[in-house]
Amino acid sequence: MLTLGTGSVVIVAVVTAIGVAALVCAFVLRRQVLAAGEGTPAMREIAKAVQEGAAAYLNRQFRTLALFAVVVFALLFLLPGDGGVRLGRSIAFLVGAAFSAAIGYLGMWLAVRANVRVAAAAAEHGGRNRGAQIAFRTGGVVGMSVVGLGLLGAGLVVLVYRENAPVVLEGFGFGAALLAMFMRVGGGIFTKAADVGADLVGKVEQGIPEDDPRNAATIADNVGDNVGDCAGMAADLFESYAVTLVAALILGRAAMGEQGMVFPLMVTAIGAFVALLGVLVTRVRGTENGLKAINRGFYISAVVGVVLAAVAAFAYLPSSFDDLLGGGGTADLGALGSLSADPRVDAALAVAVGVLLAGVILWITGYFTGTTSKPTLHVAQTSRTGAATVVLSGIGVGFESAVYTAGIIAAAICAAFLLAGGSVWLALFLIALAGCGLLTTVGVIVAMDTFGPVSDNAQGIAEMSGDVDEEGAQALTDLDAVGNTTKAITKGIAIATAVLAATALFGSYADAVERAVAGVGHRGAGLVNAMLSFEIISPVTLVGVILGAATVFLFSGLAVDAVTRAAGAIVYEVRRQFREHPGIMTYEERPEYGRVVDICTRDSLRELATPGLLAAFAPIAVGFGLGVGPLAGFLAGAIGAGVLMAIFLANSGGAWDNAKKIVEDGAHGGKGSEAHAATVIGDTVGDPFKDTAGPAINPLIKVMNLVAVLIAPAVVAMSVPDDANHWLRVGLACVAAAVAFGAVIASRLRAARVDEEAERAEEEALAAEGR
Amino acid sequence: MLTLGTGSVVIVAVVTAIGVAALVCAFVLRRQVLAAGEGTPAMREIAKAVQEGAAAYLNRQFRTLALFAVVVFALLFLLPGDGGVRLGRSIAFLVGAAFSAAIGYLGMWLAVRANVRVAAAAAEHGGRNRGAQIAFRTGGVVGMSVVGLGLLGAGLVVLVYRENAPVVLEGFGFGAALLAMFMRVGGGIFTKAADVGADLVGKVEQGIPEDDPRNAATIADNVGDNVGDCAGMAADLFESYAVTLVAALILGRAAMGEQGMVFPLMVTAIGAFVALLGVLVTRVRGTENGLKAINRGFYISAVVGVVLAAVAAFAYLPSSFDDLLGGGGTADLGALGSLSADPRVDAALAVAVGVLLAGVILWITGYFTGTTSKPTLHVAQTSRTGAATVVLSGIGVGFESAVYTAGIIAAAICAAFLLAGGSVWLALFLIALAGCGLLTTVGVIVAMDTFGPVSDNAQGIAEMSGDVDEEGAQALTDLDAVGNTTKAITKGIAIATAVLAATALFGSYADAVERAVAGVGHRGAGLVNAMLSFEIISPVTLVGVILGAATVFLFSGLAVDAVTRAAGAIVYEVRRQFREHPGIMTYEERPEYGRVVDICTRDSLRELATPGLLAAFAPIAVGFGLGVGPLAGFLAGAIGAGVLMAIFLANSGGAWDNAKKIVEDGAHGGKGSEAHAATVIGDTVGDPFKDTAGPAINPLIKVMNLVAVLIAPAVVAMSVPDDANHWLRVGLACVAAAVAFGAVIASRLRAARVDEEAERAEEEALAAEGR
Repeated sequence: MLTLGTGSVVIVAVVTAIGVAALVCAFVLRRQVLAAGEGTPAMREIAKAVQEGAAAYLNRQFRTLALFAVVVFALLFLLPGDGGVRLGRSIAFLVGAAFSAAIGYLGMWLAVRANVRVAAAAAEHGGRNRGAQIAFRTGGVVGMSVVGLGLLGAGLVVLVYRENAPVVLEGFGFGAALLAMFMRVGGGIFTKAADVGADLVGKVEQGIPEDDPRNAATIADNVGDNVGDCAGMAADLFESYAVTLVAALILGRAAMGEQGMVFPLMVTAIGAFVALLGVLVTRVRGTENGLKAINRGFYISAVVGVVLAAVAAFAYLPSSFDDLLGGGGTADLGALGSLSADPRVDAALAVAVGVLLAGVILWITGYFTGTTSKPTLHVAQTSRTGAATVVLSGIGVGFESAVYTAGIIAAAICAAFLLAGGSVWLALFLIALAGCGLLTTVGVIVAMDTFGPVSDNAQGIAEMSGDVDEEGAQALTDLDAVGNTTKAITKGIAIATAVLAATALFGSYADAVERAVAGVGHRGAGLVNAMLSFEIISPVTLVGVILGAATVFLFSGLAVDAVTRAAGAIVYEVRRQFREHPGIMTYEERPEYGRVVDICTRDSLRELATPGLLAAFAPIAVGFGLGVGPLAGFLAGAIGAGVLMAIFLANSGGAWDNAKKIVEDGAHGGKGSEAHAATVIGDTVGDPFKDTAGPAINPLIKVMNLVAVLIAPAVVAMSVPDDANHWLRVGLACVAAAVAFGAVIASRLRAARVDEEAERAEEEALAAEGR
Repeated sequence: MLTLGTGSVVIVAVVTAIGVAALVCAFVLRRQVLAAGEGTPAMREIAKAVQEGAAAYLNRQFRTLALFAVVVFALLFLLPGDGGVRLGRSIAFLVGAAFSAAIGYLGMWLAVRANVRVAAAAAEHGGRNRGAQIAFRTGGVVGMSVVGLGLLGAGLVVLVYRENAPVVLEGFGFGAALLAMFMRVGGGIFTKAADVGADLVGKVEQGIPEDDPRNAATIADNVGDNVGDCAGMAADLFESYAVTLVAALILGRAAMGEQGMVFPLMVTAIGAFVALLGVLVTRVRGTENGLKAINRGFYISAVVGVVLAAVAAFAYLPSSFDDLLGGGGTADLGALGSLSADPRVDAALAVAVGVLLAGVILWITGYFTGTTSKPTLHVAQTSRTGAATVVLSGIGVGFESAVYTAGIIAAAICAAFLLAGGSVWLALFLIALAGCGLLTTVGVIVAMDTFGPVSDNAQGIAEMSGDVDEEGAQALTDLDAVGNTTKAITKGIAIATAVLAATALFGSYADAVERAVAGVGHRGAGLVNAMLSFEIISPVTLVGVILGAATVFLFSGLAVDAVTRAAGAIVYEVRRQFREHPGIMTYEERPEYGRVVDICTRDSLRELATPGLLAAFAPIAVGFGLGVGPLAGFLAGAIGAGVLMAIFLANSGGAWDNAKKIVEDGAHGGKGSEAHAATVIGDTVGDPFKDTAGPAINPLIKVMNLVAVLIAPAVVAMSVPDDANHWLRVGLACVAAAVAFGAVIASRLRAARVDEEAERAEEEALAAEGR
């Protein structure tokens, strides 16, 4: 066991203070954003509707989730372990969840205020760059808050709990990941149900443009951008940040002792500085493309981050593994060591690998989804032979790009492994450090991502208010296009952090199992032996791999289905409004925007429970039912299938979106042609892919990994042969399986009923009209 | 080591004789089919065109593959091992490949002769049941041939090579799987390129019905049914049969000694008898649905198979593991034993688990893709909100059904594992036996599947010839609908055999590695130690899992892309014919059917190489590059992602197909409505899913597993630390990676060129017209 030296305590305290400083910076930036003009009364009125809808949704969501959090808090406390640490972990869970929720709320709160300000700025003559600035600064506030809260939470836990910090931090990461997953799923369903529903009735059936005020779903669509792309994304990135940091601290202690636990905090503190730098240097110069300015900010901050991390490594870490404080926690470390035999070199190179990975993903994602790249042009070209070939070619692009991105991430893991020279613990720590390196750019990434929904919303407000002239409208269209690209890039990077964090957590899981096994004292025999074996060739481990992959498929299917169903309900509602109020089409009547917002809120909160329960209970069922080896297989299957599925969904969606833009810009017949209709179908298919199912897989993977880490000791304790706990274990597995499976079945039954009701209502309405 | 006793030799000889008897039965059934009337001159002319096209394609395909087979023969011979056994294995590879090709050719040859006979029979008054009988008997010929050649090959190898039979059989299984994979991919691309191309121009653009003789792609479409659904499927099921048997023999020797090696042969010999029974009892009574008769045949033969297998187990195996001849090959067997401690009970129950699994999959597949079941009705209902929601709901159904089917397969593996009471080798053998049990129904399954393309073709010939009255046409439409369902069921069962065989082979792989490691004498240290570790928690093992899943995604993407591209080329060709020969639409000119057949042949042979090279070389790159542990992870990732992807693709395709049929039967507006157009798009998306990418994943998984088994000793030998072989190993990995990756890149470049050419040709033609 390990106690922190005074030097380390001072450093951690400084890191915590840097976290507070980052929050102060966020506050200052926030004032700058809010100081901008709020535009015309029409703009303000629309923005107010969006603000109210978004706030109402998040409030209801948090009320629902609070109950869930309390239950998990109690369950966590019931797990075996030392009382004080257990309480600390449970409290840290609540804090992590609260931070995640706070970041999401803050992101949404500011975005719904920034959107109208961006629209107002763009409406002024020559206000394009000013608009871009406001949008990017808004993202900066969220980015700095993510970094600040992450550092504050992790730093405080280390200061208070010292050697027990890793265990307590598991709770912190779990809370952050669980909340983020719910916000991703709920927000993702909301935003895409509204978007798809609005498009199907508006663009396809009625032939009115996007964001037309006659469409009852437009306000819901704009609310969705904020609760999904903004609140959900911010919580997701905070969770990535927290979980990667947690994994790095746990593994750092195992591989490099005290200094290994402190160094990741230093890297992320550097990330805070780098984020601020990135936000401040990003200024659109003259007439240049907004994307160019953002990319410049990214690359500058990436390079500075690598350099500073190397400086920190050489200043703080010793030149030999033998000189590490507190000693390594593993047996093989001394025997094998790293290739360089210098912790400073290993740590600095690992951080560099992570930053490089971010850069490569940025490039690959751009290549496969950009409007000028070959794959997307190919998808656009297939629109000449109809919607079916558009869908097929987009799926092909998605599959292929997923393979390359996964390959690059795998290469990064291999690089860390090679650096570690065969020492598994050091390799895992270096992988976690690479994740921290990737996250030094998180401030800029969040800023980039928030840019998307804010400028999308700004365009919507401008369109609906009618108060923006052609120059301003063009400026906002440009900003929106930039936002599409930045959103796609962010997803790629978020997925990479998920894989690195999950791989590292996988190590924490093995650590937890081995400690527990050592505690139990023997490995037993027969079935029990198989339950504790990590040999991948055991058939039940393979069953675990299959079930892990299956969980990813089921989760994705549930998310896509939820959007399809909720969008269907919205289509029926908007059709009803058009039918019962013919004045809407002639601008004489105002559609009831609020009803669509209500439907979205109701449906997404209803649909959110099933995937959440599945993610939380599937690993419990596998672990208690089949053992720790199969649970490891389960996690591996979930990571392997998850990374491919997530990138496939994100990139095919991105390619379809931009193929549509290519056609809208005049290729293959342009707007209104059959080719355009074909790409609109592709884009609609891609909506739930890229904004609901795909991004929710990141937190899913991490939630399942953390659940596994948390239950590992209990599973091991109950796997002792001929123990009275045997039936308790089987019972727990059955209950968990019943909860996960029951949620899916219940969702199916409810869905069938909702389907029937909607159809009957529509038929009755039509029949009533016919009379 | 083990030598076969006289009793066992006699039994194996009898089993081999049963294989010959099955082939004789197939010959008798074939004469019955050919004895039926060949219909009107118009029918014969069309059938002749289909026959010529199919034969020309297969001949060209075999010429291409012969070269590939020679190269693999040489490479196999170069692998380390005893000279005589090595030569035997290489020869067995050629025999397996030749058998696979022969089955495919036979299936095609008979199907293109049976189709016209089914059409002729249906054209006669009251000829419906006679038509169904001919179609099912045709399948029976193929089924009996599959069983006969499988038994003959395996039996001869065991008789000749005795204790070395397992190693030689690896070659046999590998040859069968490799050829089948190529035939599945090539045939799958051919059939769906023709189908999609024909539909896009015919149904969608010109509004003419399916199989209309004015469509230049119709003959190619009919040829495709035979080379894809018939030849490819027959080769695939033969390969499932051969590989499962190989795995069972290898593991049987390891778990139960001599009797363990002989018993699986007995089970499959029972399968031959059961298949004949199934084919003979399947008669359509009166006006009953053809599916009902087929299901009856399936269930009767399944029950008889279970009973006979139990009788064989109790007659042949001893009542205690201690009395097994030759002793078990594993150390843990004596210590752990099975739960029942009775090999007869274990073996009989394992076979029963396999047969039960077949029945459950039959039911699940029917539930998710049947025309009267809720999920398909839901997909049909979403056609009311357009093509995008049809695509999304179909994907949702596919994801969900894949999860349940994978879950059932996983449950079967767990059941075998529980029977084995924690003995891994026994568990693996019981899993392989469950696979053999599943395959006792293969004769009926092949008959069921062949039913599909034959009746589809018969309908096409009837439509094109115009010589069939309304009653006959209705009879053929009924048969076609039954064929759609049987095809979907067969795919589910084929996938289940793939997973069971792959899981068992996974054990053979571990066995090969452990023998090799024992031969090398020590496990080394550092990186080399990691290369030989089977611990799933190693980060490089996780990299293996990610890469395995990635290979499945890439393979699927390549297959889907190949169809999209080839279909595009056909669309341009058919459009050109309509444009340059306006007489076609008025029946004054006859379209050039042959040109479309040529394009399909050329494109599918061109596209077939890339996925084939990927499957063969990816495991080589991973094995030599990262080690045997990561290669095990690679296989696990491929199995886990593969089973889900295969079922997802098959079932979403099936659901879309039948959703279209539901709308065509009058729901949601019926034929010609917008809802119908939406379901046609869904069906077209599903075509390459269910008939190209999905079914090709079965042989893919097995090819990769067998490659891993074959290279395992070489990888281990080269992983010794500080050996001169180190750089050879790295070099081999680089070459393999370069071949796999280079094939993908070359395919991309070629595709881009083809795309450009096709587009330029069309633009030039349009410009020339404009003048």
